[in-house]
Amino acid sequence: MVGGGNNAFIGAVHRAAALMDNHIELVCGCFSSHPDISLASGKEYFLPEDRIYFSYAEMIEREAALPEGERMDFISIVTPNVTHFGPAMMALDKGFDVVIEKPMTFTLDEAKQLRQKVEQTGRTLALTYTYSAYPAVKEARERFASGQFGKVRKIYAEYPQGWLTTRIELNPGSNAGWRTDPKRSGKAGCMGDIGTHALHLAEYISGLKCTEMCADLTTFLPGRGLEDDGAALLRFDNGARGVLMASQVAVGDENSLKVRIYGEKGGIEWRQEEPNTLLVKWPDRPTEIVRVGNAYMGPAAKANTRTPGGHPEGYVEAFANIYRNFARTVMARRDGRQPEASWLDFPGADDGVRGMQFIETVVASGYDEEKKWIKWIE
Amino acid sequence: MVGGGNNAFIGAVHRAAALMDNHIELVCGCFSSHPDISLASGKEYFLPEDRIYFSYAEMIEREAALPEGERMDFISIVTPNVTHFGPAMMALDKGFDVVIEKPMTFTLDEAKQLRQKVEQTGRTLALTYTYSAYPAVKEARERFASGQFGKVRKIYAEYPQGWLTTRIELNPGSNAGWRTDPKRSGKAGCMGDIGTHALHLAEYISGLKCTEMCADLTTFLPGRGLEDDGAALLRFDNGARGVLMASQVAVGDENSLKVRIYGEKGGIEWRQEEPNTLLVKWPDRPTEIVRVGNAYMGPAAKANTRTPGGHPEGYVEAFANIYRNFARTVMARRDGRQPEASWLDFPGADDGVRGMQFIETVVASGYDEEKKWIKWIE
Amino acid sequence: MVGGGNNAFIGAVHRAAALMDNHIELVCGCFSSHPDISLASGKEYFLPEDRIYFSYAEMIEREAALPEGERMDFISIVTPNVTHFGPAMMALDKGFDVVIEKPMTFTLDEAKQLRQKVEQTGRTLALTYTYSAYPAVKEARERFASGQFGKVRKIYAEYPQGWLTTRIELNPGSNAGWRTDPKRSGKAGCMGDIGTHALHLAEYISGLKCTEMCADLTTFLPGRGLEDDGAALLRFDNGARGVLMASQVAVGDENSLKVRIYGEKGGIEWRQEEPNTLLVKWPDRPTEIVRVGNAYMGPAAKANTRTPGGHPEGYVEAFANIYRNFARTVMARRDGRQPEASWLDFPGADDGVRGMQFIETVVASGYDEEKKWIKWIE
Amino acid sequence: MVGGGNNAFIGAVHRAAALMDNHIELVCGCFSSHPDISLASGKEYFLPEDRIYFSYAEMIEREAALPEGERMDFISIVTPNVTHFGPAMMALDKGFDVVIEKPMTFTLDEAKQLRQKVEQTGRTLALTYTYSAYPAVKEARERFASGQFGKVRKIYAEYPQGWLTTRIELNPGSNAGWRTDPKRSGKAGCMGDIGTHALHLAEYISGLKCTEMCADLTTFLPGRGLEDDGAALLRFDNGARGVLMASQVAVGDENSLKVRIYGEKGGIEWRQEEPNTLLVKWPDRPTEIVRVGNAYMGPAAKANTRTPGGHPEGYVEAFANIYRNFARTVMARRDGRQPEASWLDFPGADDGVRGMQFIETVVASGYDEEKKWIKWIE
Repeated sequence: MVGGGNNAFIGAVHRAAALMDNHIELVCGCFSSHPDISLASGKEYFLPEDRIYFSYAEMIEREAALPEGERMDFISIVTPNVTHFGPAMMALDKGFDVVIEKPMTFTLDEAKQLRQKVEQTGRTLALTYTYSAYPAVKEARERFASGQFGKVRKIYAEYPQGWLTTRIELNPGSNAGWRTDPKRSGKAGCMGDIGTHALHLAEYISGLKCTEMCADLTTFLPGRGLEDDGAALLRFDNGARGVLMASQVAVGDENSLKVRIYGEKGGIEWRQEEPNTLLVKWPDRPTEIVRVGNAYMGPAAKANTRTPGGHPEGYVEAFANIYRNFARTVMARRDGRQPEASWLDFPGADDGVRGMQFIETVVASGYDEEKKWIKWIE
Repeated sequence: MVGGGNNAFIGAVHRAAALMDNHIELVCGCFSSHPDISLASGKEYFLPEDRIYFSYAEMIEREAALPEGERMDFISIVTPNVTHFGPAMMALDKGFDVVIEKPMTFTLDEAKQLRQKVEQTGRTLALTYTYSAYPAVKEARERFASGQFGKVRKIYAEYPQGWLTTRIELNPGSNAGWRTDPKRSGKAGCMGDIGTHALHLAEYISGLKCTEMCADLTTFLPGRGLEDDGAALLRFDNGARGVLMASQVAVGDENSLKVRIYGEKGGIEWRQEEPNTLLVKWPDRPTEIVRVGNAYMGPAAKANTRTPGGHPEGYVEAFANIYRNFARTVMARRDGRQPEASWLDFPGADDGVRGMQFIETVVASGYDEEKKWIKWIE
Repeated sequence: MVGGGNNAFIGAVHRAAALMDNHIELVCGCFSSHPDISLASGKEYFLPEDRIYFSYAEMIEREAALPEGERMDFISIVTPNVTHFGPAMMALDKGFDVVIEKPMTFTLDEAKQLRQKVEQTGRTLALTYTYSAYPAVKEARERFASGQFGKVRKIYAEYPQGWLTTRIELNPGSNAGWRTDPKRSGKAGCMGDIGTHALHLAEYISGLKCTEMCADLTTFLPGRGLEDDGAALLRFDNGARGVLMASQVAVGDENSLKVRIYGEKGGIEWRQEEPNTLLVKWPDRPTEIVRVGNAYMGPAAKANTRTPGGHPEGYVEAFANIYRNFARTVMARRDGRQPEASWLDFPGADDGVRGMQFIETVVASGYDEEKKWIKWIE
Repeated sequence: MVGGGNNAFIGAVHRAAALMDNHIELVCGCFSSHPDISLASGKEYFLPEDRIYFSYAEMIEREAALPEGERMDFISIVTPNVTHFGPAMMALDKGFDVVIEKPMTFTLDEAKQLRQKVEQTGRTLALTYTYSAYPAVKEARERFASGQFGKVRKIYAEYPQGWLTTRIELNPGSNAGWRTDPKRSGKAGCMGDIGTHALHLAEYISGLKCTEMCADLTTFLPGRGLEDDGAALLRFDNGARGVLMASQVAVGDENSLKVRIYGEKGGIEWRQEEPNTLLVKWPDRPTEIVRVGNAYMGPAAKANTRTPGGHPEGYVEAFANIYRNFARTVMARRDGRQPEASWLDFPGADDGVRGMQFIETVVASGYDEEKKWIKWIE
C-alpha cells in the first residue's frame, strides 16, 4: 500500500475492503512520506519492520527483489492525486498489478500514458470508482442493458455535499487540504472529487457516453484554490439529455449521490445513502422497491452481494465491531493490559443467559391461555 | 471456526467481519460435520490441509497441542444452536477465548453453566447480538444513559420478517431447516431466532430489564415444528411498558427490525434497514435526523465507526467488491485461467482516462462564458 | 352544527369538509354552550343571527318548525363525547339525518339505543372514522376483499402520539381537558380517542372482526383521569392474530397511525402521515408503491379521489389558502379596511408577468445552440 | 367561474378550494365553450339556470348589470392559457376581482397589459401558483428572510413528471391536448406548465431573482408540438447559482416537485409529494424534520394551516369523503333513489356500536391483572 497512514481516511477503507474476503493480506507498505508516520502506521497494521518502507520507489524495488511467493502481489495507491502516476507506472514496469484511488492521475496526459502501460504490460489495474460496485447499481446497469426500459431519454446525476461550507482546508491535517489545492489535486476540485463519480455512474448504468457538455463552475469560498460547486447540461451519444450537479457547499448534505435514469419504457432511481434499494419506475404500474439480496435479483447483483435480503450492507461492519472489540480485549488481556472501556462493549455470557431466559419466559407465557402475566424466569 | 461451511450464510459474515480490521486471521476450522464439506470449505478459505478438522473436539485438542504463537487464539462457533455448548465449554477449558452466534446455547441450563465456566476460567466470550454493535444504536444507548430523555415510559421493539411465509424448510439445504426444528433450534422458533434480538436491543438501549411478560405465540404453517409468529406485552423494572413483536410470516418484509423508546423528555427510533440514521424526538422541537459519522456524535458511536458521515455502512463492502473482483481476476490470470465475466466488472484504465477527460471537459466548459456546448475532450 | 365554536379544532375540519364538494351549506348552528361564543362563532361563519342557537334542543325544535326547503337537512355533532347522544336521538326523532364525531356515544348502552333509533327511523347516520375514508385505505380493503392476499394471518395497528407527554390538560382551554376527563370523555382516554381508530382501520381493511383481547392500559402522568397509553394482543374471527398499540405519551410523535396486514399471499402497509401511498408486499417480488390517483387504482379508491396522481391530498388546501387569502383581501378592500399582511401573501400580477418572462427567457436560451448565457428578458 | 366544466380537472380543484373556508360561494359560471356542457355542469353544481352562461362576455355583462349584493364578486378563470387574457381584462374593466390559473396569459405582452390594468383599476388579482401556498413553503421563505441561513449560494429546483412519456395528447379529451398545442398553450410546453412552478418556488423561498439563464429544451416525442423536457443553469441577483429541471417524460414520476436551497449557514429541502415536511439543514448539527402544525412554526405557516400537527393536509379531504358520501346518500334517499354502492361506504351506527364495544372490551382487559383473554363484549 502506498499512502494510507493512520491519520488518513480512505486508506483504512481500502484495507478493510481488501481483507474482508480473505483473498488478500497486507504484507508491506509505504504509508506516508513522513518516515515516522509510515513506521508507526505499519506497526499498527501488524507488519514486520522490514516490510515498512519510506518511499514507494524503495518499496517497489525491494519487493521486486524478493522471491516469488514472498513478495507482494499488487500495490494499492491511496495517496493524493498528484502521487498516483509515479508508483503506478513503476509498479506495472516491475510486474505488479495495481489498484488506484480515483481520479486515476493528476493530468489527462498521465492517464493516457498509464492506460498505454497497462496495455503494454498486460497487467491488471483497478480504479476505485466505488459506487458502481454496489449490487443495486449493477442490477440497474443489467436492466438497461437488457432493453427492458427502452432507449434512454433523460439522466439526472447529482452529488451534493456540505463539508466545504466553510474553509476547513485551513485546519491543519484536514482532508480538505490537498483536495482544494490545485498543486496536489489537479485542475478540478469538486468535479474531480465527486462530480466524476456522478458521471461515471450515469455512464455505467445507462451504457451511454457523454458527447457534449455545458457547465458552470463556481468557487464560493474566497481564497479557495479550486471550484467548490458546479453543474452541467449534458448530451449523450444516443441523443439523451442529462444534468450533472455536484457541490461541496450544499450545507447539511452528507454524500447525497443520486442517479435517476429514464428510458422510453421505464426507469430507475438510486441513492447512495440507502444503497440496497433500487427504485424501478414504470409508466402504468406502481414503482417497485427492488431490494438487494432477494431471489428476484439478476446475476450481476447476486455476484456482488454477501448477505441475504434485509441485512443491509453495513451488517458486516456491525459484526466486525463485535469482533474488533473482542479481539482488542483479548489481546489486551493476554498482554496484561487493561482493555479500554469502549472495547468491552460487546455482548457476553450474561447477555447469553438473559437471551435464554427470554426464550424460557416467552414460551411459558406464549402458550398459557389463562395466566396473564408471567414473571421473568431467572 | 466451528461451522460456517461454504454452503452457510452466517459463517461467511463472521469471517468477513473478523478479517476486516486486520486484527484477526483465519488459521484453522472444522466447517461442517460432513468431512468433505469441511475439507472443501477450508481449502476455499486458503487453509493448509492440516489445519482443516473434521470435529470440533479434534480441532480443539490438536490446536491446544500446538506451540503458543502457532495455535489458534480463539474459536468462533457458528453452528446451529444445539451445537454451541459443547465446543464452547471445551474451548474455554483448553484456554481459548470464544465467539458464539446467538442464542448462546440450546437450553437455559446450558447457558448458566457456560456463564459459570467463563467466570471460572477468566476467559473472554463474545456473543453476536449484532444489532447492538451499530454505532447509531450505541449513540442511542449513550443518550438514554446520560439522562437527557428522562425516565423511560414506553418501548416498542419489533422484528417482522416474511421469509417463512411458506414451508421453505422442506426444501433440502434451506437455512430454515434447523431453525424450525425443535431438536436443533430449541424451545422457540421465531422468538429465539429474532425476537431475542428485539428484546436485547430494547434492554441495551434503554438500560432497563424486563420483569414481566404476557405473550401469545402462534404457528401459522401446519406441520411446522416451532412458532413462526409471536407478540408480547412487557413490563420493565422501572415501571415502563413495552410491546415486543416478531414474525416470520410477515409476507414481503425482510428484516424490519425497529426499536422505538420514549422517555419523559425525549425518545428515539432506529430501523435496522437504514442503520446509519437515528431519529431523535422531542416534545417541543423538530425531530432530528442524527447520522453516524458526524462530528456531533458521542464517543461510543465514534469508537465503532469506520467511515465519515454520508458513507453509509456498506461503503466498505462496495469497496470490497472491487478488491475481490480484482483479486480473483489477478489470481486467475496468474494461473493462466480465464477470469469469470462477473469478476471483470471493476473500473480499469479506460475508466481512469475517461475520468480525466471528464475533468478536462468540465473545466473547459465551466469557465467559458460565451460558448454554450463543449465537445467531450478525448 | 352542534359544537364547533371558533375555539375548537375538529368543528373547523367538519365545516371545511362539508363545504368542499358544494353539496352542503352551513345554515344554522349551536356552536357552544356559552351563548356569547355561539353567537360570535355563528357570525364569523356568516350566519344570520336567527339561525344561531344557544342549545341543541332549541335548534332542533325551531328548525323542525321551519318549512321544508328552508330548514336544515341534517345536523353535525362535534361536541365532547358526553353530548353526542342527546342531540343525535332528538334529531333523528325530528326527522333529521345525523353526522357524529367518533366515538359515537358516551356509553355502550347509549350506542345501542342510538343504533336502534337509526333503524327505527330509517334515517342516515354517519360517524367520522376519518381514516377509513382515505382512498388508499379503500384500495387496501378492496384488495383484501378480492382475495388476492389470501387468508389474513397477522395485523399490526398502531397509533402513537406524543401530545399528552406533559399534563397540558391543566392549561385552560386545552383540547386535552375533556379528553382526559372521564366525566366528559367516558371510560377510556387514549383508547377511546385514538385506539378505536386503529381497531376500526384493522377491521375495515381486513374484513375481519376481533373476538378476543388481552390488553394492558397505563396512566403515566400522575393525576390524569384516564389512561394515556395502552397495548393489546388481539385474536380475530378467522384465527388471525394482531397487536394494537396506542399511546399519547410517545414523545415527539404526531399522529403516527400505521396499519400493516399480512395475508398468506401478500400484504399491505399504510401510514396516515403519508396517506396517498399504499405499500403492497409480496413473497417473491418487489414491494410496490401504490399511489392514489393513478389509473391502476380500483373503483373504491377512484370514487374517493379528487385530484390526479402526484397531487397529494392537501393540494386542495394549498389552493384554498390562495382563495382564502384572496377573499379576505377583497372583502377588506371593499369594506375600506386594510388587509392583514398575511392575507396579501398570494401570487398576483407581478408574479404573472414574471412567469411569462420566464417562458420567454427559457425558450430563448433553450433553443440557442451557440450563446451560453441569456439575460432575463424583462 | 370561466371554464371548469364537469370534464375538467383543475376547475374542480378551484371550486373545492374556494368553498372550503366558507368565505366564497359559487353563484354563476360559464363552464365551457360548448353550451350543453356549460349547462350540464352548472346544473351539477346546483346553480339556477339563469346564472349559467354560454360565453364569458355574456356572463360578465349580465352579472355587472345585477344589483350589488346579488351579482358575483369575482371571477375565476380556469381555461387553457389562450383564453385567460380576454375574460381577465373585461372583468377588471367591469369592476370584478380576478383569480387566474397560471401561467397568467398566452404571451408576455398580454401579461404586461394585464398587470397595467390591475394597477389602473386597483382591483385584486390572484394567480394560482399553488405550491407557494403550502405552509411549509411559507415557513421556508420566512426563515430565509430572517437571515438565519445567511446568504444563499445554491438552488436546485426540479419538477419531473412522467405523464407525457407517450403521445397521450392524441387521445380525445386528454388534458394533454391543449398543453402540447402551441396555439392554445403558448411558446412553451413543459416549461410553461411545470418549469414555471419550480422557478416561482425558488424565487419565492429564497427572495432572489434569476438574472441569467442557460437552457436546453428537448421534444422527445416525434410530432409533439412543444418541448416535453428541459433543464437550465441559473444565476441569481446575489451571485447564487442554480439548476432548474423540468420534464414530462420522466417515466414513472408523478409530480416530483422538489426545491433545495443552500445558504452560507443553513438550508432547506421541500418535496411537494410530502408537503407537510420541511427539512432544515445545518453545518454542524442534525438535519431537522420541521412539520407543519407544530407550535414551533412561524406565523406565516400558522396563518395558512387548518389542522394540528400530524393531521396532514389531506385530512380534510378524507373528512370530506365521509360528508360527500353521506350527503349523496341522503339526497338519494329523499328523492326515492337508490344510493350508489360507493356512496354507502361511510361509517354508521354499527361502526359506532362496535367502537363502544371496543372501549368496553379494552378497558375490561386493560385493568385485569389475572385473566389473560377477554372475549369481545357485545
